[in-house]
Amino acid sequence: MVVAGTGEAETHRWNSDDISVEQLFDCKEVPTWGEQLTFRAFFVSFIVGIFLCFIVMKLNLTTGIIPSLNVSAGLLGFFLVKTWTKVLDKFGFLKKPFTRQENTVIQTCVVACSGIAFSGGFGSYILGMSKQVSAEFIEANDDLNTKDPHLGWMILFLFTVSFVGLFSVVPLRKIMILGHKLTYPSGTATAHLINSFHTPQGAKLASKQVSVLFKSLASSFIWSFFQWFYSGGSDCGFNSFPTFGLQAYKNRFYFDFSATYVGVGMLCPYLINISLLLGSIISWGILWPYISTKKGQWYDSNLEESSLLGLNGYKVFISIAMILGDGLFQFIFLLFRCSNDIYTKLHNPPKQQIHPFSDQPLYESTAMTFDDRRRTNVFLKDEIPSSILSGGYILLAISSIFTVPNIFPQLKPHHILAAYLIAPLLAFCNAYGCGLTDWSLASSYGKMAIFIFGLSVGKDYGGVLAGLAACGIMMSIVSTASDLMQDFKTGYLTLASPRSMFISQAIGTAMGCVIAPTVFWLFYKAFPLGLENSEYPAPYAKVYRGIALLGVNGISSLPKNCLSFCFGFFLFAMVINGVREMARYKKWWFCGYVPSAMGMAVPFYLGSYFTIDMCVGSVVLLVWERKDKRHAEAFAPAVAAGMICGDGMWSLPASLLAIARINPPMCMRFLSRSDNFKLEALITRQGLPN
Amino acid sequence: MVVAGTGEAETHRWNSDDISVEQLFDCKEVPTWGEQLTFRAFFVSFIVGIFLCFIVMKLNLTTGIIPSLNVSAGLLGFFLVKTWTKVLDKFGFLKKPFTRQENTVIQTCVVACSGIAFSGGFGSYILGMSKQVSAEFIEANDDLNTKDPHLGWMILFLFTVSFVGLFSVVPLRKIMILGHKLTYPSGTATAHLINSFHTPQGAKLASKQVSVLFKSLASSFIWSFFQWFYSGGSDCGFNSFPTFGLQAYKNRFYFDFSATYVGVGMLCPYLINISLLLGSIISWGILWPYISTKKGQWYDSNLEESSLLGLNGYKVFISIAMILGDGLFQFIFLLFRCSNDIYTKLHNPPKQQIHPFSDQPLYESTAMTFDDRRRTNVFLKDEIPSSILSGGYILLAISSIFTVPNIFPQLKPHHILAAYLIAPLLAFCNAYGCGLTDWSLASSYGKMAIFIFGLSVGKDYGGVLAGLAACGIMMSIVSTASDLMQDFKTGYLTLASPRSMFISQAIGTAMGCVIAPTVFWLFYKAFPLGLENSEYPAPYAKVYRGIALLGVNGISSLPKNCLSFCFGFFLFAMVINGVREMARYKKWWFCGYVPSAMGMAVPFYLGSYFTIDMCVGSVVLLVWERKDKRHAEAFAPAVAAGMICGDGMWSLPASLLAIARINPPMCMRFLSRSDNFKLEALITRQGLPN
Repeated sequence: MVVAGTGEAETHRWNSDDISVEQLFDCKEVPTWGEQLTFRAFFVSFIVGIFLCFIVMKLNLTTGIIPSLNVSAGLLGFFLVKTWTKVLDKFGFLKKPFTRQENTVIQTCVVACSGIAFSGGFGSYILGMSKQVSAEFIEANDDLNTKDPHLGWMILFLFTVSFVGLFSVVPLRKIMILGHKLTYPSGTATAHLINSFHTPQGAKLASKQVSVLFKSLASSFIWSFFQWFYSGGSDCGFNSFPTFGLQAYKNRFYFDFSATYVGVGMLCPYLINISLLLGSIISWGILWPYISTKKGQWYDSNLEESSLLGLNGYKVFISIAMILGDGLFQFIFLLFRCSNDIYTKLHNPPKQQIHPFSDQPLYESTAMTFDDRRRTNVFLKDEIPSSILSGGYILLAISSIFTVPNIFPQLKPHHILAAYLIAPLLAFCNAYGCGLTDWSLASSYGKMAIFIFGLSVGKDYGGVLAGLAACGIMMSIVSTASDLMQDFKTGYLTLASPRSMFISQAIGTAMGCVIAPTVFWLFYKAFPLGLENSEYPAPYAKVYRGIALLGVNGISSLPKNCLSFCFGFFLFAMVINGVREMARYKKWWFCGYVPSAMGMAVPFYLGSYFTIDMCVGSVVLLVWERKDKRHAEAFAPAVAAGMICGDGMWSLPASLLAIARINPPMCMRFLSRSDNFKLEALITRQGLPN
Repeated sequence: MVVAGTGEAETHRWNSDDISVEQLFDCKEVPTWGEQLTFRAFFVSFIVGIFLCFIVMKLNLTTGIIPSLNVSAGLLGFFLVKTWTKVLDKFGFLKKPFTRQENTVIQTCVVACSGIAFSGGFGSYILGMSKQVSAEFIEANDDLNTKDPHLGWMILFLFTVSFVGLFSVVPLRKIMILGHKLTYPSGTATAHLINSFHTPQGAKLASKQVSVLFKSLASSFIWSFFQWFYSGGSDCGFNSFPTFGLQAYKNRFYFDFSATYVGVGMLCPYLINISLLLGSIISWGILWPYISTKKGQWYDSNLEESSLLGLNGYKVFISIAMILGDGLFQFIFLLFRCSNDIYTKLHNPPKQQIHPFSDQPLYESTAMTFDDRRRTNVFLKDEIPSSILSGGYILLAISSIFTVPNIFPQLKPHHILAAYLIAPLLAFCNAYGCGLTDWSLASSYGKMAIFIFGLSVGKDYGGVLAGLAACGIMMSIVSTASDLMQDFKTGYLTLASPRSMFISQAIGTAMGCVIAPTVFWLFYKAFPLGLENSEYPAPYAKVYRGIALLGVNGISSLPKNCLSFCFGFFLFAMVINGVREMARYKKWWFCGYVPSAMGMAVPFYLGSYFTIDMCVGSVVLLVWERKDKRHAEAFAPAVAAGMICGDGMWSLPASLLAIARINPPMCMRFLSRSDNFKLEALITRQGLPN
């Protein structure tokens, strides 16, 4: 099929029906935000939410690795409501047709609900507080540093902390979605899928796009299914394919054949993918290998690999320092431009309505496409009053300041206040980074919180528990913030009202705050959790408690030069941003080529495999655009969305298989030539021992 | 790229320049057969021939696995002559331009020359005769059953036996190429490549086809290169990918990611691919598993896997019986139609010239395309007089009858006579089967000859040596026959004269008869050959001697029911052919759907992996044709040829790497889940032992 798509004759074929998505949907009325929030949507969300909470909880407590179930959520919701409406329609009872906005509402609500099952930390910080887990450590297993889970305080705690993220990033939605035009690849892919489900019949290009999306989705699903068979064991399967050799693989440079990230790469701007690659090279190619040579000098050489006191500490802290540097710059720059804008408005009446946070006029600009204009209009129509937002935030903060110290006496009100003062910045950073790269780094922020709060409270005053509780607060805030912004992007692309998105997310979060702890409680009562070699080892509970123990031992325990590196990269991120803004202001030629510090920081901790995937996506797109630009523009987003969604869809059956203990039958393993030689000799000599 | 090639608008684009290959070449005069045979062509062939003989010999004596080097031969020849002519042209000395016919002559000559290095059996039967190898067996290591290699008798022997194949199949070329229109996928691919190299500039479709061919070639080359890295060990790499699970892999049902066979599948007719699949299912899916259950009853359960007395015996003998059944039917049917034709001609003067061996008129038929007409005309222009052919054959036979018993006194003249009487049938079978499926089964025929001749001579009269020598005769005949017919196909498609093909093949064979034994002699004098764990173990030398030892122990040593099975499948092949011819004669609807017995027999011995590849090729073609028939017709042969040639090109560097002892760095291994579990436990416990 190498030859396909070479046709120059094709380049002009789309003219006849080259209309936009929103023009197609023009025949369909957009329901008001109130109409989008139907009872059936929340009922279905509740059912699907319980189902997904069970799955996430089971995975939390077994392997601790949780795939993204967003697409499955959307699909399940769609098919349930579609069946429901079809049945009703058949009997003549259907009053309201199923709209894409309603679909987005379900999607948002389910993701918010099942998100709590993850960010609630039942497999990590909450279980890490328990006596069972603490018994496996030598220090700090006294009453002050342990707290066994109980349904009551868990629900109360989650209700107190889970809504903060929502209120803190909503005001920034216009900057993120309209101003910076962030990609949010997963959200975009979901929106494409939802639009495809609801596209009115008739238009040729649209039906082609839909068919392309479903073909790509099916291929990606089958590919993931195929990969599954060969992944029976750790370091097995295509996800561990040493594409550039075993040495590069050890430094996490490999193409892992993930359809998701190739798709994400096709959706992300080239500059982001290049920034990611640059970041990987700097970190995994230069910095970590260099620091490794200092093993035994800068840090203890007998540490476990996951220890924050070793190499892993550099990774976590440096990446967060860089992200904070970028985020802080953006935040301050925002405040500066806002005040500047207000000043200008007061002194000169506006001639043209310019969005304060963007260089270009926002509404009805001639440079905007029909789709952009329409979506922007809808997105800006239903405002969420800032009085409600700030009021809500302050109310939540106050109630937290009183509630949380009641649950965890180790945390004092001033800790909570500090957390709530810094939370909006972190929430912004995570939502911004997620929009650029599709990665939510919630657990990194959580780990940082454990360390800092554990340190400031101290072991003798229950610092371990304080750290774990602070981790809960931080993870909830930053992960709901990025989820919500992702949903805003989906809503933007499906003409769902931001107001209904916000309410749906709030309702979903509330559901999650009840469902997730209840599901956990069932497991907790039924099985022994967190014991090694048991059915539910919950490996991350120990990891999180381990980090907390490190934290309480003081900042001096951090590996050598770690803080200097952090400071350096923090400054570096600031400088990069400064250079970019300066270049943009002065219209220097390279203003479009300054890499993103946020993008560079993401692979610092995660490794390079997904950046390779994303660069492959970029290359595919580049070649395609070279061959036929219009064709690529028309179909690349559909192909990318299909790839992301197909892979995402497979997560559900894969999770169910894992839960049913049906394991992949084979392991595709990569051995060096010499290891393979030894293995073969062993097999011929005696066979594999039992 | 899922979407590419969907364009309906494309379907009519080719009209404007939808001209055939031969119309493009119409501006170039076809040289006469004498002009095609230039000195420079043979000089270059000689150089490349020596080079390839070294490579083949080295592989013969190390692993015994020899890839097809045809494409590399063609490429090397092309680039050498092209450079030569370019240099001459620059200095104004160029008299004759480099034509594609000349290129085909080089290709043919080099393949014939390096073919002797394989069919001469230096790693198999000749070394199997030596005292060194016989010393490793208990029986028959007396003087009567051993003969050490010597340059003199080897050259003489090769000269006597290597030309028989040429003379025996040349008369059948019209039936094979024009009548049955056999595919000869490798030959066709080479022809496409040669045509592409020499295509005159200008035509749009042609230049597109050429660009598609080279793109496909590059992809296939890179793919093979990539695969190489993961193939460091036995059962490693993509060639051992258990695509349908480990159980299916054990029965050789897997897709082995070979670009060559996917390409071959795209060139072969659907019916052949389906026949192959049917054959695999009957043999590897049903018959072999059934016979395996009789292990210990029908045959000794302690045998080595390669022993002809065990399951392997059923495989070899049944597949050959079936091929012989098919071949014999075709042969007899041919004789019948020939005589019928002569009878008709004598009694009724012909109104239209109908080719005697085909149902359709051959020349200038309106149903034929321009290309077909042109090629047929050239192909029929230069006749090779049958007097020369039959005279040559008889002369060779007589000289062999006197010469061979002088070299091997164990073989009596009546054995040689018998061999030469049956040889044309076997040569026909192999050439026919190769045309259908691209597999030359020369070594199977050789093994059969060892068995039969060894049996008829008997151990006490030197049966082991007689068998091995007969193997040499048979392998030379059948392998040169299929090579020559493959070359005739290449010649047909590049308008090279059959006469120049024949002469080039003869010259190439003569070169090979001198070069190959000389190269072997160098190795033989310099290194100890055929010793286990030495640098040159030549594993097949022992295998062939082992077969000879089995043969001399008598027919009763064959596993139980083997002969009955052979007879059954022999009849089955006859019946299938009978049904097809009957259906064709009576114009029954299913006449186009009767599978080919020859096709079914090939996987009986080889396994199913390549049939899966070929069926994948069929499916790709089918889908492509469904989407856009004209597009597929224009480009599928180019893509297929590119895939075959790219993979073939990689053989050369791969062989050179193997010779330089640069081994692939990794092994991609497939373990069952439980084996992997054991391996992991082992590694964590103690690491891999040395």
